[in-house]
Amino acid sequence: MNETISTWDKLSELLIEGNSSELNIFIDSLSPSETARAISRLPEEEQARLLSILSPEDAADMIENIPDAQAADLVEDMPSDKAAAILEELHSDHLVDVLGEMDQDSSSAILSKMDKEDAEEARKFLEYPSDCAGGLMISEYLKYKVDQTIQDVLNDMQLNRNEYMDYHVLYFYVVDFDDKLVGVLRMHDLLFPSPDTMLTKIMIKSPHSVRDDSTLKELEDFFDEHHLFGVPVVDSQKRLVGVVLPNAIEEEVNKKKTKTFLRLSGIIGGEEFRTMPLLSRSGRRLSWLSLNILLNIIAASVIAIYQDTLSAAITLAVFLPMVSDMSGCSGNQAVAVSMRELSLGLVKPGELFWVLLKEAKVGIINGFVLGILLGGVAFLWKDNFWLGLVVGGALAANTLVSVALGGMLPLILKKLKLDPALVSSPLLTTVTDMCGFFFVLSFASAVLPQIENI
Amino acid sequence: MNETISTWDKLSELLIEGNSSELNIFIDSLSPSETARAISRLPEEEQARLLSILSPEDAADMIENIPDAQAADLVEDMPSDKAAAILEELHSDHLVDVLGEMDQDSSSAILSKMDKEDAEEARKFLEYPSDCAGGLMISEYLKYKVDQTIQDVLNDMQLNRNEYMDYHVLYFYVVDFDDKLVGVLRMHDLLFPSPDTMLTKIMIKSPHSVRDDSTLKELEDFFDEHHLFGVPVVDSQKRLVGVVLPNAIEEEVNKKKTKTFLRLSGIIGGEEFRTMPLLSRSGRRLSWLSLNILLNIIAASVIAIYQDTLSAAITLAVFLPMVSDMSGCSGNQAVAVSMRELSLGLVKPGELFWVLLKEAKVGIINGFVLGILLGGVAFLWKDNFWLGLVVGGALAANTLVSVALGGMLPLILKKLKLDPALVSSPLLTTVTDMCGFFFVLSFASAVLPQIENI
Repeated sequence: MNETISTWDKLSELLIEGNSSELNIFIDSLSPSETARAISRLPEEEQARLLSILSPEDAADMIENIPDAQAADLVEDMPSDKAAAILEELHSDHLVDVLGEMDQDSSSAILSKMDKEDAEEARKFLEYPSDCAGGLMISEYLKYKVDQTIQDVLNDMQLNRNEYMDYHVLYFYVVDFDDKLVGVLRMHDLLFPSPDTMLTKIMIKSPHSVRDDSTLKELEDFFDEHHLFGVPVVDSQKRLVGVVLPNAIEEEVNKKKTKTFLRLSGIIGGEEFRTMPLLSRSGRRLSWLSLNILLNIIAASVIAIYQDTLSAAITLAVFLPMVSDMSGCSGNQAVAVSMRELSLGLVKPGELFWVLLKEAKVGIINGFVLGILLGGVAFLWKDNFWLGLVVGGALAANTLVSVALGGMLPLILKKLKLDPALVSSPLLTTVTDMCGFFFVLSFASAVLPQIENI
Repeated sequence: MNETISTWDKLSELLIEGNSSELNIFIDSLSPSETARAISRLPEEEQARLLSILSPEDAADMIENIPDAQAADLVEDMPSDKAAAILEELHSDHLVDVLGEMDQDSSSAILSKMDKEDAEEARKFLEYPSDCAGGLMISEYLKYKVDQTIQDVLNDMQLNRNEYMDYHVLYFYVVDFDDKLVGVLRMHDLLFPSPDTMLTKIMIKSPHSVRDDSTLKELEDFFDEHHLFGVPVVDSQKRLVGVVLPNAIEEEVNKKKTKTFLRLSGIIGGEEFRTMPLLSRSGRRLSWLSLNILLNIIAASVIAIYQDTLSAAITLAVFLPMVSDMSGCSGNQAVAVSMRELSLGLVKPGELFWVLLKEAKVGIINGFVLGILLGGVAFLWKDNFWLGLVVGGALAANTLVSVALGGMLPLILKKLKLDPALVSSPLLTTVTDMCGFFFVLSFASAVLPQIENI
C-alpha cells in the first residue's frame, strides 16, 4: 500500500522540482498500468504541468500507455498547439482513437495546429465509424508502384530505415498508377530473385482485400477464414487506403465488450473512472437510475392494486420480492446467452421462434424445480399447502415468462436497432417484477380463504 | 429467415448424399460464423457423420472457424485416432485451446494417437495455465544457432518455404548451443549485408523476452510499453521455448471478458450455447439459481421479522421491492466501475479506503436525490409526510450502503482470491435486499403511529 501511494507522491515531488529528464526517467521506470494509475491520481493542475514539462516525444510515449479516454481528457485541456505537438508523435491508429474520444471542437482545434499532411490523414480516418475497416486501419505500411523493381524497394528501405522500424513490415503492397491495389508481396519474396526483377513478376496478383466500410463482424470473419497477418483496405474505387492488422480487430472487439459490460451494469455515456469529477460521475449514474425508478414505480403499482389481498395474507409480502428477484436472475441468464450467441453469429435477430422454443423448455424445467423449492419452503414454514401452491406456482409461471422474454429481448432490440446491453436488463426487470407480483397476488386472491391470516 | 434455415438443411442433404468434395465446396462457401451456426444446428449424429466424411485437413479448416468449446464437443465424441488426425492439422495455439476445453481423459486419449513430436509439444504447452506466456505462445517461429550465417537462413527458408508460409516471420531468433536466447534479427536485416555474414554480427543482442510464467497483465504491460509484433518466451534456464504475438494477448483478454460477462449474468461452468443438450443447460443454470434462492430466503426473512409493522402499514409493501431493487442497481454500477478499474490496474485490491471514500461521496449524492424522488412520490401518493420520510430515508441510506459495498466488494473478493464476477452480484443483492427491508421497516416501526392504516 505504501509503495503504491508513493508513486504519485514521488511524481508530484519531481513535478515541483521541474526537472524534465528526471521526470522522464522516473516515468520510464513505471509499468504502463502504474503510469496510468499515478497520472490519474494527480490533481488536474499537476497533470497539466506534467505534460508541459515533458518533451512532446516523452509526453506521447506516456500517453500511449494510458486508456484513450484518460489521454483525451489530459490533452483536451492543454493549449491546442502544445496538444498538437504531442499528438503528432502518436501512431496513426492511436491518434485517431484519442481524437475520437474528444468533442468535435477540441479535436478540430488540435487538428488545425498539426502538420497539414498528418492532420488531413487523421481527418480522413476520423470520418470512418471507429468499428469499420476504415476506422481500424493504420497508415504505416509500405506500397510500391507497378513499375518498380526489387532494387527500388531495397533502396527505399535502406533510405527510410528509421521510419520503417515501427512498421509491421510483413507484406508490401503494389498499386497501379491510379493507386489501385494490384498485388502483394511478402518480405521473404525479396530475398531470392535478382534485384532487377519487376515487382509485378513476383507479386501475388489480385490479393485478398477488404472494403473500407467492412464491418467489424466481416473483418472478424475474414481473419477467421484467412490466417493472414494483415489485410489491405481499399475504397470504393479499389484504391489502397490502409492496412488492418488482426490485433486492431481484437482490440475493437475488446472495447465493445467493455462497453457492453458497463452498459449492462448501468454505467452509460462512456467509461467512468473514479478520478473523474464527482458530479459528472454522480450525474451519469443518476440519469440511468432515475429511469429505473420510474420503471420500478410502474411495476410496484401492481402491488398497490392488490393491497387488500396482501393485507389479508401478509405472509405473501415475504415472498413478493423473492419471486421477482429470482425471475430476474433467470431472465438475465437467458439475456446473457442470447447476447453471446448474437455476437458470435450463432443466432440471427429473426430467429425469435427458435429461441422461444429453446428457452421455453429451460423455463419449464427450471420453473418447475424452483417452484417446488420455494413453494416447499413456504408450505413448511406456515404448514399451509395453499400458500406453497400460490408461491411455487407463481415462481414457476414467472420463471417461464422471464426466461422466454429474456431470451427473445436481445433479438427484438437488435432488430429494432436498439442496444440490447442498454435496454434488456431494465425492461426485463420491470416486466418480470410486474408479472411476479401479479402471479403471486392474483393466485392468492383466487384461494384467499385458504391463506387468510396465516 | 428462409435463407438461413436452408444452410443446415442443405448441409443435411449433402451429408445424406455423402459426397465429400461437394460438402467441402459448400462449407468453403460459408462464412466462419455461418459455418459455426450451421454445424451447431445439426443433430449430433449428423455432426459426427460430417467430420468423418471430410478429409482431416478440411475438417481441421472447419474446426478452426468455430468456437473452441464447440470444436472440443465435436471431436471429443469421435474415435480418438480420427480426432487425432484432425487435430494434428491445427496450429499449435489452436490445438492447445481445443484440447484445453476437453476433459483430461479425452485429451489424453487423443494425444496418445497423435504424432509423437506434436503430442509432446502439445503436452508441454498444456502444462501451462492458458493465461500465462507459456499458454499463449506459438511454436511456429524461426530460430537459428549462433554459428550460422545469413546464407544458412536463406537456404533454410527456401527449403521450407511451404511450411513457413503460415509463419509470422517478422523476427528470427538466435540461440546458443544450450538453446538459450542470445539475439534477434528482423527479416529486413537480411536484405543488405553479404550472405556470408554471421548472424551474431548483425543481430540485436540481449533482446526483449518474457518468462514462460509471465501473467496476462504483465504481457499486456509489455506490449503496451514495447510496440513489438511478437516477443520470445524463455524458460527459467533462459532457453527459447516459444513466441507470443500481441494478438494472442488480446484474444485471451477477450475470452476473460466473455467469461466475466457470462458469470456476472449467472452463466457459470463455461459457455452455454442453445444447441447444447437441454438438461445440461437447465442444470447449470439451476445450480446458480438454487444458491440464489437460499440467499433470497435469508434476505426476505427480515420482512418476516417485521411482519407486524408491515401489517399495520401495508402501503410499505409497495415500496419494499422498489428500495431493494434500486439499491441493487446503484450497487451494481459501483461493482462495474471497480471491476473495470481493477482490470486496467487503475486501482489495487488494497486500496479499499480510497474506493470507499470515492464511492461514499457518490452514494450520498445519489442517495439524497433518489430518496427525494421516491420519498416525494410516496408523500404525494398518500399525502403523508412521514411515509415519504420513511421511504425516502430508507432509499437514501440503502443507496449509500450499496454503493460503498458495491465499490469495495470486487477489491475484497480479489484479495481473497475469489472471482468478483461470480460472487459480487449475488452477495451484493443479498446484503442490499436485507438492508433495504431493514431500513424501510425499522424506520417505519419508529414512526408507526404516523403511518398506520394509510
